[in-house]
Amino acid sequence: MKHTLSVLLQNKPGVLSRVTGLFSGRGFNIESLSVNETLDPGISCLVLVTSGDSTIIEQITKQLHKLIDVIKVSDMNEVDYVEREMAIIRVKAEANTRAEVLRIADIFRGKVVDVSPKSYALEVTGAADKIQAVIDILRPIGIQEIVRTGTIAIARAKKK
Amino acid sequence: MKHTLSVLLQNKPGVLSRVTGLFSGRGFNIESLSVNETLDPGISCLVLVTSGDSTIIEQITKQLHKLIDVIKVSDMNEVDYVEREMAIIRVKAEANTRAEVLRIADIFRGKVVDVSPKSYALEVTGAADKIQAVIDILRPIGIQEIVRTGTIAIARAKKK
Repeated sequence: MKHTLSVLLQNKPGVLSRVTGLFSGRGFNIESLSVNETLDPGISCLVLVTSGDSTIIEQITKQLHKLIDVIKVSDMNEVDYVEREMAIIRVKAEANTRAEVLRIADIFRGKVVDVSPKSYALEVTGAADKIQAVIDILRPIGIQEIVRTGTIAIARAKKK
Repeated sequence: MKHTLSVLLQNKPGVLSRVTGLFSGRGFNIESLSVNETLDPGISCLVLVTSGDSTIIEQITKQLHKLIDVIKVSDMNEVDYVEREMAIIRVKAEANTRAEVLRIADIFRGKVVDVSPKSYALEVTGAADKIQAVIDILRPIGIQEIVRTGTIAIARAKKK
């Protein structure tokens, strides 16, 4: 089962390495990971996506809590949340395909972030399955490069 | 000096931990990091931002090359590149501030990704300084939570 964990940690050298080490020590692969500053530059927020048995994820969560520089761990699967990632996709765009690439960009509300005579680089955001849909539809045109951020997640606010 | 490194690596448990360990072993802090699959699910692309002396970055780059699961390392500072990150920012949005929050979202081409009677969550993309500008302008209204992806980067294509 896919798990999305959100971890608040001290922004210090070595913390990230210890967190990722806990996963690899158990043979768990991290499918995607994002880490950056929060409002407080001394604290970072890390979001990671991993697949695996819930019992083991629970054990890892407990071990994360024990790390001195870890402030908070949330298993997003336990709450209602929004998840998003961003991809920059460089796709072949020559005379005969440019219009189609722009149409696709428009449909998925993407933005062109770099242009050359032979390619466009598109920025697209959305849940992982939307990003995958864009990739699948652009693939026959010719994808030259993809860079994706890790997934990030935020708990939904109470609706009343 | 700020350095943005782009690293292609085998998508296996432990690789991420070894890469981040190289930085912490030298007391280097990673300011932001993103890792996710590429077109080939067996290969991940990792982008990280760190600050430090160029000589030491060069040493780390050489050590990265020696890791068996590292396929390619690019120091983006050596090329012309586009960098982007995404943030989801939850900001207070009550009767008297909703219009202003939406105006700001509109100016920065943000999208509202979650709504409650008391807050909006905005998705914003851009270079790190643009994200910082959005944060600075929303801060007086009341930011409740921020989650940011790591910065990702792609080399610009040749213009002719």
